[in-house]
Amino acid sequence: MTASARPPRPTLLGQNQYGKAETRVVRVVRDGDTHHIRDLNVSVALSGAMDEVHLSGSNANVLTTDTTKNTVYAFAQKYGVTAPEAFAARLARHFVSSQDAIGRARIRVEEYAWDRIEGTDGAPVTGHSFVRGGRETRTAEVVHDGSSWQVLAGLKDLVVLNSTDSEFWGFAKDPYTTLKETTDRILATEVHARWRFADGLPVEGEGAPEWDAVYAEVRGHLLAAFAGTYSLSLQQTLFAMGSRVIEQVPGIDEVRLSLPNKHHFLVDLEPFGLKNDNEVYFAADRPYGLIEGTVLREGATAAIPTD
Amino acid sequence: MTASARPPRPTLLGQNQYGKAETRVVRVVRDGDTHHIRDLNVSVALSGAMDEVHLSGSNANVLTTDTTKNTVYAFAQKYGVTAPEAFAARLARHFVSSQDAIGRARIRVEEYAWDRIEGTDGAPVTGHSFVRGGRETRTAEVVHDGSSWQVLAGLKDLVVLNSTDSEFWGFAKDPYTTLKETTDRILATEVHARWRFADGLPVEGEGAPEWDAVYAEVRGHLLAAFAGTYSLSLQQTLFAMGSRVIEQVPGIDEVRLSLPNKHHFLVDLEPFGLKNDNEVYFAADRPYGLIEGTVLREGATAAIPTD
Amino acid sequence: MTASARPPRPTLLGQNQYGKAETRVVRVVRDGDTHHIRDLNVSVALSGAMDEVHLSGSNANVLTTDTTKNTVYAFAQKYGVTAPEAFAARLARHFVSSQDAIGRARIRVEEYAWDRIEGTDGAPVTGHSFVRGGRETRTAEVVHDGSSWQVLAGLKDLVVLNSTDSEFWGFAKDPYTTLKETTDRILATEVHARWRFADGLPVEGEGAPEWDAVYAEVRGHLLAAFAGTYSLSLQQTLFAMGSRVIEQVPGIDEVRLSLPNKHHFLVDLEPFGLKNDNEVYFAADRPYGLIEGTVLREGATAAIPTD
Amino acid sequence: MTASARPPRPTLLGQNQYGKAETRVVRVVRDGDTHHIRDLNVSVALSGAMDEVHLSGSNANVLTTDTTKNTVYAFAQKYGVTAPEAFAARLARHFVSSQDAIGRARIRVEEYAWDRIEGTDGAPVTGHSFVRGGRETRTAEVVHDGSSWQVLAGLKDLVVLNSTDSEFWGFAKDPYTTLKETTDRILATEVHARWRFADGLPVEGEGAPEWDAVYAEVRGHLLAAFAGTYSLSLQQTLFAMGSRVIEQVPGIDEVRLSLPNKHHFLVDLEPFGLKNDNEVYFAADRPYGLIEGTVLREGATAAIPTD
Repeated sequence: MTASARPPRPTLLGQNQYGKAETRVVRVVRDGDTHHIRDLNVSVALSGAMDEVHLSGSNANVLTTDTTKNTVYAFAQKYGVTAPEAFAARLARHFVSSQDAIGRARIRVEEYAWDRIEGTDGAPVTGHSFVRGGRETRTAEVVHDGSSWQVLAGLKDLVVLNSTDSEFWGFAKDPYTTLKETTDRILATEVHARWRFADGLPVEGEGAPEWDAVYAEVRGHLLAAFAGTYSLSLQQTLFAMGSRVIEQVPGIDEVRLSLPNKHHFLVDLEPFGLKNDNEVYFAADRPYGLIEGTVLREGATAAIPTD
Repeated sequence: MTASARPPRPTLLGQNQYGKAETRVVRVVRDGDTHHIRDLNVSVALSGAMDEVHLSGSNANVLTTDTTKNTVYAFAQKYGVTAPEAFAARLARHFVSSQDAIGRARIRVEEYAWDRIEGTDGAPVTGHSFVRGGRETRTAEVVHDGSSWQVLAGLKDLVVLNSTDSEFWGFAKDPYTTLKETTDRILATEVHARWRFADGLPVEGEGAPEWDAVYAEVRGHLLAAFAGTYSLSLQQTLFAMGSRVIEQVPGIDEVRLSLPNKHHFLVDLEPFGLKNDNEVYFAADRPYGLIEGTVLREGATAAIPTD
Repeated sequence: MTASARPPRPTLLGQNQYGKAETRVVRVVRDGDTHHIRDLNVSVALSGAMDEVHLSGSNANVLTTDTTKNTVYAFAQKYGVTAPEAFAARLARHFVSSQDAIGRARIRVEEYAWDRIEGTDGAPVTGHSFVRGGRETRTAEVVHDGSSWQVLAGLKDLVVLNSTDSEFWGFAKDPYTTLKETTDRILATEVHARWRFADGLPVEGEGAPEWDAVYAEVRGHLLAAFAGTYSLSLQQTLFAMGSRVIEQVPGIDEVRLSLPNKHHFLVDLEPFGLKNDNEVYFAADRPYGLIEGTVLREGATAAIPTD
Repeated sequence: MTASARPPRPTLLGQNQYGKAETRVVRVVRDGDTHHIRDLNVSVALSGAMDEVHLSGSNANVLTTDTTKNTVYAFAQKYGVTAPEAFAARLARHFVSSQDAIGRARIRVEEYAWDRIEGTDGAPVTGHSFVRGGRETRTAEVVHDGSSWQVLAGLKDLVVLNSTDSEFWGFAKDPYTTLKETTDRILATEVHARWRFADGLPVEGEGAPEWDAVYAEVRGHLLAAFAGTYSLSLQQTLFAMGSRVIEQVPGIDEVRLSLPNKHHFLVDLEPFGLKNDNEVYFAADRPYGLIEGTVLREGATAAIPTD
């Protein structure tokens, strides 16, 4: 955090950043009649020698947010859009290396998935027709300060549910505890996960992760661990999900998970003379439990913000 | 529309309805270790002899919204949840037949899709693990007045895109027209479709539609028509989509489509010395074109509300 | 509804409309150092001789949605933005009168309120500084077909609550009824109201309503009737609200109200040895009761769509 | 951050927390016929000796999220709801002091404002009738670890606009810069502000801030600074807003502001033969500039998370 004074004001400028948020770019590649698309939402945050713009309003050091938006579009054409991590890294390097005043760039990307529209035979109807796929959003965040890199990949809005193999009992009681213990409940959550690549991994060229493949792999492990864990608590499931990623995917040192417990309450049907043998549930919105945690590779230092 | 007076007030009560909206019910069926789930959001609207509750506050004719909610849960247990159309029909019949004061019931249902979590081998990891699937929401609406039935099925939030085979030119010009003609553009929309089953079709038993199969079939036709239409206007695509459903699916007499034109604007990259040969687009939020239309089977009378 | 055939297809085109939705326009008027702003969201829907654009893709009759957007901006400059009803009427007249192919225009407007930023002395800090005010959104809808006019004004998102003077008892019971009767509950709702001006009222010039004044007046009556009604049911409150508008405001013939019952459930604190004498409530999201109804002036014919 | 190993797994548990999020509580106080209400959304996050629940699923140390919800309701009755900061502090102290396993509690509160419904004479219609007021949401966050306290107050969704007295020029140019300089533009933003009370201030009793009064005061300063600053950049306005709070309000050591630049673009009306002399604007949604910064009292150390 840099701090600058302008006497006699007793106030200092602390951490600050700026940039264009949520630039929506769709990149089409035409490979003959077969088209490919990548659909991104890019947010840029820059910081550096920005005291004067705050103190006097001088914009001399300010690369405008409009310019950062233009750069996103120009780079999409010049270099194409491959993985969001790679696209973000290219942008981060550009801003830091091309402007003396900018010491740090953080690029956040959301990517929206598109599947091909298929006919009843399972084959694409055309080479250029797509349907938005999946419910989750892929995320990437790259921070670069001219020398070091921090790369977080992730996903959000991935909603999963186990209709059994979840218990909850043996918890602490206090005078405000009324919850009944249960040995069979629905466990449902909306996965928000971020994973951090090891320090020192190159972000491009030889030795750089194959971002798309790693994303698919991590997503698969998260799902498999959620499904495969006989759960005594959502925390246990969380740790199992994070651990599986760390154990199975070299190059990832840290996983942060935020798992809302999407409560499904068994409806009391006795007043109507009916049994409810774990068949009919009310899916509640609010309030919800919120379970958050970090899983680290041994020896790694935590770096993902914990909110 | 019924209207009731209470002199000397110069005001009359017109159409009115009430009920519990958005009751969220999840129904699990356990077939050994293989579980099945249906996940619905049910909204009930009842009308009938409701003058007194408006005029004097007497609730004698009011089956409470809490009761309509309870009924949803009880029926989910007693009868199970099959297709949303069938579940809605059962509820509608119940309310109208069990309460003299209720002359008409309209049941609306949203259904959320769940897929099984699969491993890398494509097989389910367990029989009880699910992931929310697709982005679209299936909808159903059943209106019953004791004798006739109106059944609408539908979907919303199905986002599709053609990256070519769309033109737009030859349009009317007036002094406020600045749009350039184009022979190659992205065509993208978020399909909101409702289709109406023919009057007189039974809602259950012999001759009733196989709701789930018809839903899948209509969804497939909408996608195929969107993908397969070389489009000179979104209206043309709309008509092609609706026509295909009418032509291919017996028993459906009317299709209503609401298609926002999700504009993808080609970004001007010339200031940066770059060409943009239909490669880089800005995906805009607002404003958007909105194209709405009904397609009817010859001889049918339009009945889906047009907003 | 017009319907057109193109043999041998067994499909017909039914009701259809198109236009640009959600054009956001902010109009500033500078009266010396005192500025005035109006902030609108305008949606245009046009219909007419549009068979060909659906059937063959010919756009010859299509005034593009881009043009309708441009017209909104141009008219905001040329004529200024006064009340949303007046602005909508001007647009509707223009589209219908200037294009032979367009037989009907429906213009919907949302208006967002801005208040002046005031200092501690209650005086405006400057003549050009504003803060978004109120939580409700004002709405207007004008439909014109070249001869007749239909004008609906309204509001939505106006959240109100009475912490007492609401009872609910004496309701019908059936086997699914478990609700307890109560003689003191919170009554809360989010008002969505539309009111229709009498047929034949001029939309501009002599005899036209003073739209802004009428809006303020109706809003005041809705609030006063909600607050002042000792309520035995939300339906009774609804009718009181609608009636008061009809009775107090000449020129309005119909009011449609949609009132979600925003349930506030008394929390059971007995397990903790505490009484809850109507002091602590859980504000629930879903499900919610939904009470909808129309109130008419005697002799008027209902025309507001009832959903 | 505590970290725990369970050999031979090469994974460690890092920072973690859990609790019930978004418990909605409405507290009514009846002072004769005059009622008062406070309307809160409370989120609890607890952390401590939680290794076992993650590693083995033992819930012995887990006070359930259901219990934290119950505690919110019980405390609302027992102690009443005064300011959100005070209510949060009471909850935080309770969780940390009553459970050995819980070392730290973070309580977040949103408060929704209600105004009395007034008649045309400006007097309340009743003592129990309310309308949701303002568009902003008041926020509070209290973190307590058994000894120290951190108290953040704040607001979000406060939308403000200056229709003049804003310039933007003299900015850095690079090959991707196309933005025109301007000496008169609309400056609009949606204020998200958090302010931190000085370390060591008591959270209750003598010497504790008068939370409600301070909130009103800070809100007033933020608005006044926004309105009164002739702005050469949104950063300058941000610093002016934060500085004014620090300078005017003793006891606040740090202000963090997140200010999206809600762009209002001048519409080009030349194609229609019209001038646009800063009169007609398009209010854009995305992308938007995002300006974030911290202002500190001299000598204070920054502690508000910067995202």
